[in-house]
Amino acid sequence: MIYLDNAATTMPKPDCVIEAVTKAMTCAGNAARGVNEASLAASRLVYEAREEIARLFGFSCPGRVCFSLNATEALNTAIQGLFKKGDHVITTAMEHNSVLRPLQRLVDENIISLTVLPADKKGRISIENLESAIRSDTKAMVLQHASNVTGNVTDLYKIGNICRKHGILLVVDAAQTAGVIPVSMEKMHIDVLCFTGHKGLMGPQGTGGILVGENVHIRPLKEGGSGIHSYDKRQPAVFPEYLEAGTLNVHGIAGLLAAVRNIRKSGTEAMGEREIFLAREFYKKVREIENIHFYGDFTSWEKTESESFDRTGIVTLNIEGCDSGEVADELMERFGIATRSGAHCAPLAHKALGTVESGAVRFSFSAMNTREEVNRAAEAVNILAREAAEDSEP
Amino acid sequence: MIYLDNAATTMPKPDCVIEAVTKAMTCAGNAARGVNEASLAASRLVYEAREEIARLFGFSCPGRVCFSLNATEALNTAIQGLFKKGDHVITTAMEHNSVLRPLQRLVDENIISLTVLPADKKGRISIENLESAIRSDTKAMVLQHASNVTGNVTDLYKIGNICRKHGILLVVDAAQTAGVIPVSMEKMHIDVLCFTGHKGLMGPQGTGGILVGENVHIRPLKEGGSGIHSYDKRQPAVFPEYLEAGTLNVHGIAGLLAAVRNIRKSGTEAMGEREIFLAREFYKKVREIENIHFYGDFTSWEKTESESFDRTGIVTLNIEGCDSGEVADELMERFGIATRSGAHCAPLAHKALGTVESGAVRFSFSAMNTREEVNRAAEAVNILAREAAEDSEP
Repeated sequence: MIYLDNAATTMPKPDCVIEAVTKAMTCAGNAARGVNEASLAASRLVYEAREEIARLFGFSCPGRVCFSLNATEALNTAIQGLFKKGDHVITTAMEHNSVLRPLQRLVDENIISLTVLPADKKGRISIENLESAIRSDTKAMVLQHASNVTGNVTDLYKIGNICRKHGILLVVDAAQTAGVIPVSMEKMHIDVLCFTGHKGLMGPQGTGGILVGENVHIRPLKEGGSGIHSYDKRQPAVFPEYLEAGTLNVHGIAGLLAAVRNIRKSGTEAMGEREIFLAREFYKKVREIENIHFYGDFTSWEKTESESFDRTGIVTLNIEGCDSGEVADELMERFGIATRSGAHCAPLAHKALGTVESGAVRFSFSAMNTREEVNRAAEAVNILAREAAEDSEP
Repeated sequence: MIYLDNAATTMPKPDCVIEAVTKAMTCAGNAARGVNEASLAASRLVYEAREEIARLFGFSCPGRVCFSLNATEALNTAIQGLFKKGDHVITTAMEHNSVLRPLQRLVDENIISLTVLPADKKGRISIENLESAIRSDTKAMVLQHASNVTGNVTDLYKIGNICRKHGILLVVDAAQTAGVIPVSMEKMHIDVLCFTGHKGLMGPQGTGGILVGENVHIRPLKEGGSGIHSYDKRQPAVFPEYLEAGTLNVHGIAGLLAAVRNIRKSGTEAMGEREIFLAREFYKKVREIENIHFYGDFTSWEKTESESFDRTGIVTLNIEGCDSGEVADELMERFGIATRSGAHCAPLAHKALGTVESGAVRFSFSAMNTREEVNRAAEAVNILAREAAEDSEP
């Protein structure tokens, strides 16, 4: 199988990640739950992971890196934990349901008012729209670093400056960029960063986290055993335990630590560049096919040969007249190529792109893919497009 | 190291579990997110796990087995999701903070009123107290199947009958019993069962779940991508997706599936019996030491030679005049024995037992321990107790 569904989860995982998980399953106890050697080994490992992750994301407080099951849990922690009655929040039409649905819940409960910035037909948000949406009661901007549908990357330097200028919080969903596109909480003025471990970082599933800036107040999503202050009736307001009730996934975090080290060893940007290079190669091979529609802003890939970080390694397209689900099935059945069709859990994005009925076929690459796989995928698209064109002839 | 902190997390994991996790990391995609082979393989694996777990816990609805990060998340889902303003809830003084703190939050928010049933000096709850605490506005009883401090097992057959008779929900924290003590949701009239995968079940960390009875209404703790009904603005009320926003820990669930199959292959009760047998052997070797205090109800272990399921494999004790933390340190440093001292995240339990100041040293066994380890642990306790007795002589 040629696996091109890496925006859903990267696969396979690097050997060093698998080895780290295996090792943890034989020797890691329960982190921060006791002072025996197994528990201490787990605690040390978790703390090293906090440090590596803080470093990767340009954040100076490893003690405020809190682990979660996935990016969705991190985003729910942020969205359910930050706002109070009367707050205004800004988001965008390109968001994943992991942002839209928690915000909708707060709207339903009459807690927040919400502005959803529109996207154009290429899935782009206008920075001017964004700035003019800010009101005196705006508490935060919650938005993705990159779209899981189009691969467009948001310019967080610009947005961070605007948020800082207006004194509003910037909450970022980095599910599609962590490990691929450089992120700096400090330079981008990000207040809360939510990430997943199993996509671009190439760590195990069951890992992710939330990084909470020093002056940001947030309520925990869950309460329970903290390993500290056990006699407090309420969750102790001490980071990182505050947001980490219950036993951590130390086995997964061990793999995540190995994954992040692997990325840093390769040069922080090398893995992302490789992924984007492969996606761009694919795009260059299929862009001339007449009856294909692409979704997203490919301007930078058209313009220059340099590997810029304004797109992730995603190419989403439709073959004219074909349902995306049928194309994805043909790719799988006839060519052994795994992609993802349908709505990608981003309903408003598909409304903006005009693909609610058809869905779209997403090809998403990782640094583990090869040029040979790129060539075979492009050839398969070529064949399917030709067949579709022949079928539609009178 | 002799690892006797299995009530915190079992270690090491069986080979079949490690192999299953390793395999999943090389071939499992994102479950229920697309129809490519990798995603379908993940989906099938997750569904098999739901089926195995439903079977293990005497539950007829595998589609209502929902996965979570750990038991704490499952308990927060239950406690935050079940109650409405004005409900009365009953719990016990023996509960873990994963039950007490979420309930306290609802008390703080003036949503529920709470009755905490007292425990006696052996950590026992009186069934009569429980029945007389039920009021007309009582919505649920939330309590543990077994204590993580004493190892006492609650008689859920009796409690389930009382709850059913009075029409109140029974919500059970099976963190300490899943995989060790037989659980039947049907026979015990359990409405909501919360479990963890990394303790008695011997699965990986980062796994656990909540089983929700057919007529039980519950709100999700988190919302986000569901893989189904992506155009709904709100989390689709379809199980199991309803309570499972975001990417599941398929790597961990693969290990959990292997773990549960391993338990069922060994005979559902064999692993638990082995653990209890070892703990009882340990108890028999140290119970005659004069200056040791035990915490919990050991009546059944005193009475008969049969392996009854009214205690888990926990022996918690103090050596007279010694701080529990110091004893645990000595056990680790001088004898290489890992135990857990302190409060075990169960503050009211230690109040009932009279061990708030001293804490207590918990020896917790698993089926992976050996009789040789039991003997060496008992011998170490013997030595430390003798030294303490000598020190205290005038």
